Amino acid sequence: MTETDVAIEMEADAAAKALYRDPAPALLLDTSELKKWCLYRALIAEFMATLIFLYVSIATVIGYKNQSMAEACTGVGFLGVAWSFGATIFILVYCTSGISGMHTRDEEDDELIDARHASGHINPAVTFGLFVGRKLSLVRTLLYIVAQCLGAICGVGIVKGIMKHPYNSLGGGANEVSTGYTIGGALAAEIVGTFILVYTVFSATDPKRTARDCSFVPVLLPLPIGFAVFVVHLATIPITGTGINPARSLGVAVLYNQHAAWKDHWIFWVGPLIGATVAALYHKLVLRG
Amino acid sequence: MTETDVAIEMEADAAAKALYRDPAPALLLDTSELKKWCLYRALIAEFMATLIFLYVSIATVIGYKNQSMAEACTGVGFLGVAWSFGATIFILVYCTSGISGMHTRDEEDDELIDARHASGHINPAVTFGLFVGRKLSLVRTLLYIVAQCLGAICGVGIVKGIMKHPYNSLGGGANEVSTGYTIGGALAAEIVGTFILVYTVFSATDPKRTARDCSFVPVLLPLPIGFAVFVVHLATIPITGTGINPARSLGVAVLYNQHAAWKDHWIFWVGPLIGATVAALYHKLVLRG
Amino acid sequence: MTETDVAIEMEADAAAKALYRDPAPALLLDTSELKKWCLYRALIAEFMATLIFLYVSIATVIGYKNQSMAEACTGVGFLGVAWSFGATIFILVYCTSGISGMHTRDEEDDELIDARHASGHINPAVTFGLFVGRKLSLVRTLLYIVAQCLGAICGVGIVKGIMKHPYNSLGGGANEVSTGYTIGGALAAEIVGTFILVYTVFSATDPKRTARDCSFVPVLLPLPIGFAVFVVHLATIPITGTGINPARSLGVAVLYNQHAAWKDHWIFWVGPLIGATVAALYHKLVLRG
Amino acid sequence: MTETDVAIEMEADAAAKALYRDPAPALLLDTSELKKWCLYRALIAEFMATLIFLYVSIATVIGYKNQSMAEACTGVGFLGVAWSFGATIFILVYCTSGISGMHTRDEEDDELIDARHASGHINPAVTFGLFVGRKLSLVRTLLYIVAQCLGAICGVGIVKGIMKHPYNSLGGGANEVSTGYTIGGALAAEIVGTFILVYTVFSATDPKRTARDCSFVPVLLPLPIGFAVFVVHLATIPITGTGINPARSLGVAVLYNQHAAWKDHWIFWVGPLIGATVAALYHKLVLRG
Repeated sequence: MTETDVAIEMEADAAAKALYRDPAPALLLDTSELKKWCLYRALIAEFMATLIFLYVSIATVIGYKNQSMAEACTGVGFLGVAWSFGATIFILVYCTSGISGMHTRDEEDDELIDARHASGHINPAVTFGLFVGRKLSLVRTLLYIVAQCLGAICGVGIVKGIMKHPYNSLGGGANEVSTGYTIGGALAAEIVGTFILVYTVFSATDPKRTARDCSFVPVLLPLPIGFAVFVVHLATIPITGTGINPARSLGVAVLYNQHAAWKDHWIFWVGPLIGATVAALYHKLVLRG
Repeated sequence: MTETDVAIEMEADAAAKALYRDPAPALLLDTSELKKWCLYRALIAEFMATLIFLYVSIATVIGYKNQSMAEACTGVGFLGVAWSFGATIFILVYCTSGISGMHTRDEEDDELIDARHASGHINPAVTFGLFVGRKLSLVRTLLYIVAQCLGAICGVGIVKGIMKHPYNSLGGGANEVSTGYTIGGALAAEIVGTFILVYTVFSATDPKRTARDCSFVPVLLPLPIGFAVFVVHLATIPITGTGINPARSLGVAVLYNQHAAWKDHWIFWVGPLIGATVAALYHKLVLRG
Repeated sequence: MTETDVAIEMEADAAAKALYRDPAPALLLDTSELKKWCLYRALIAEFMATLIFLYVSIATVIGYKNQSMAEACTGVGFLGVAWSFGATIFILVYCTSGISGMHTRDEEDDELIDARHASGHINPAVTFGLFVGRKLSLVRTLLYIVAQCLGAICGVGIVKGIMKHPYNSLGGGANEVSTGYTIGGALAAEIVGTFILVYTVFSATDPKRTARDCSFVPVLLPLPIGFAVFVVHLATIPITGTGINPARSLGVAVLYNQHAAWKDHWIFWVGPLIGATVAALYHKLVLRG
Repeated sequence: MTETDVAIEMEADAAAKALYRDPAPALLLDTSELKKWCLYRALIAEFMATLIFLYVSIATVIGYKNQSMAEACTGVGFLGVAWSFGATIFILVYCTSGISGMHTRDEEDDELIDARHASGHINPAVTFGLFVGRKLSLVRTLLYIVAQCLGAICGVGIVKGIMKHPYNSLGGGANEVSTGYTIGGALAAEIVGTFILVYTVFSATDPKRTARDCSFVPVLLPLPIGFAVFVVHLATIPITGTGINPARSLGVAVLYNQHAAWKDHWIFWVGPLIGATVAALYHKLVLRG
């Protein structure tokens, strides 16, 4: 390597160092947040985004199942269902990442709200993974999860209101262990699927990476996250219908309210939370270790 | 947070402030626009874009239906139809956003035409939503809507000219309330679907966001908008065929010209205009409030 | 508009003016190009890209048709075929735009080769449209078209070599007027389809736009072009199989070599060349007029 | 060309030259790497990424085949399978390119690790192609390939653990020469398919291009690579099931462990390695020659 090369690199290096900084770990209990409007705006944004997510995806599932009974081969199929989940997450992360997410600053007192509060989660497992990675306070974590679950219930409620009778007779979009698969297999699929999603979220929001590639995060952040949701659905719709998002599973279970959906419901909390934890640790201990 | 951190942030903050500025609300009646070539160029661009949009999407619908009568499972299916609507909007917003849209300046007198005149609408509901958000004058709003409706009629006219007989016998791509759904359900689906689209448009064209992430808007703006159209079609094709665009519904109704299409036609104006209004208010009062 | 606003705009304006410059129209006969290695490299790149394009897309068509005879509903369908054409153009424009395309400079004498020689055409209609827009010399136009046609023939030749017997019995991927459509309808579909593609190419490579949005062209240029090919295929596969690229139609006709393919072959030159010309004029006279 | 034009170009030229630099060819034997944690982190990242890749894609294949026996037309089809392979590579290249890939520097001694060690390969053919292009040392090449193969075996192992009985009865996702195709045809398809992929990788990671378009590589690098995998699958699933990745073929062969998979297995090493070599030479001798 020539001297010039080294000089160029050192310059780039210095630039990266100036910009790059790991934010301090979030406080476990940061009650000062509770006084700020931006927290409540973030909660409204999470509520609305999860409502939209469930509305679009479950309407796609039920509409497809209803249609395919009348005429096979016409509806969007499971590929369309996977697109519905993945592409909706893409647009919602795009729309929400400026609100409940990164690059946001509280306008009232102009205090920085950093990447810890990152990026249109729309998913309790993502929120929990970021909490494990110390990007969010416990208070914010719990409030986000409550907002997401309420949003999911309302989103499915709208679908049920529009679809009425067919909703329940067509399975309600519920997450269950499909015939031919074991509880353990379903749990493993949920763990691996959520791991893939949360690993992608950590990769996309890594402040180190952002510093190195200034164009990296804001431009492409929502795209790989949406695609991660898409491919995990391709792989696991036949196994569990694909949870990897406890709010999604809960919202559907509440409106569908059949024994089959409640019986396996714990899988769709335990699996995603384990997968998110493993992803947070993998990122912290191996990739950034 | 260390002192260095604060310094870095303050610098970024100052930079963002220098660039960021909410444009003044558009005048309701700005007749001075009527003397400028750039307005007429914008109208031509809206006309052509809506023509292309309807040509591609309705040709996809009719071509698919014609084909699937001969051979099931071969055609593009409703998933292909959803892609046709969504991906065509993506390329048209990309192509038109420099003309009738944002970042445009009038070359004759070099006066700025700012983000208010934003971004290849191709949809009266989007134009109306931006009007409600005070991004467009009333004059421009009405002229855009007229241009879009005329473009839609011509686009469907070309399809009917090419497809001839099959066009009418295959439903014409018309928006109607599908069997098994109520008027209220269809109206709700149109309101929610248009809300999702216009909320995405507001998020993508927010000048505040643009300032913060300079790479944000021009690069990714058309992609989430196209994907929003795509996912709303996945969800609501089974319910109404998916309007969320009064010009699309009108263009098809004019060429198809059957009682069924006209009977429900009001839904495809009232629903989208309500959805767009709610999205504009949500953006203004909650997200930017 | 406040004074500060105006100041900000003027600054941005000046910056844009410094960067932006319409290149001088290409010479009709620029024989000096013939002495440069970069021209021959561009021809090799066009040859290879068109070869790859035809190989992937026609293998998809024939492979699908072969498979769907054994088992319906399993193959990629016409939606997969449309993706094959569109997504392959996306990656090839991405890969080739640095070679036969824009942002290239001749390394031998370090002379600039500007946007006129733009951007992985892979299609005689695109090359012709850019010639009409005076972005390319006549010499380069003709040589590109020859390279594209030879590449297309070789690409289809590889498919025929691998697929052997099924190739001809499955229609060869040839462009023909489908049953139920008129010559005039097919010609119109080819004109409109190519118009959409070439209009997208002009929008994506507009030097004015590039100057205004420095991140615009190199990042997103290939994506809308690929999507334009995709949606035009969704709309016109049922009508003509979709040409909009005379090299594609020729390559297949040569290897398939049946009366049906040759009889209509003129449509797939005349239609695309008219569509490209109209797009070039629309861009020049209306959008930039 | 006016003088101003020339001045503008010279400035841009100088800027590009300052940034652009072809890294020195990698040493064949660079044992000093073996002492660095960043190598082992890269190996873990390659292992994990290949594991995830095989898990998602093979689960999609088997899950789809299992489902389509119960109900035709509902599953994701071969189009969904192609998306699964392509989109998963997109997210994994995105996530891994900062770890085992480009723009990485060794944190221990702050020494630069340049683009030679580029970019989430997840595929022995890609690693080998970059080795032929002298971007990687022999030591790193071999260790990456071992990590990829182990990851692939584990990924398929998880699928087999979850899917149990159906896995073997549904073909295991193995690469074989399909009925009706010759060994030579299958080999040709693997060569051409891998050529397309590795050619895209070289185009996306070309340091010359990166310098010219600073936004080029980090933003769009993973997208064309993922799409290349997608379109090659569309074209060659009917021929061989699509290998173009020896780790993928090996991982499946080990878990499936049937005569049919082993008999043709050499094709899925020889084909990809030839294709990768040709792509490396084409890039070096023609495009950069």
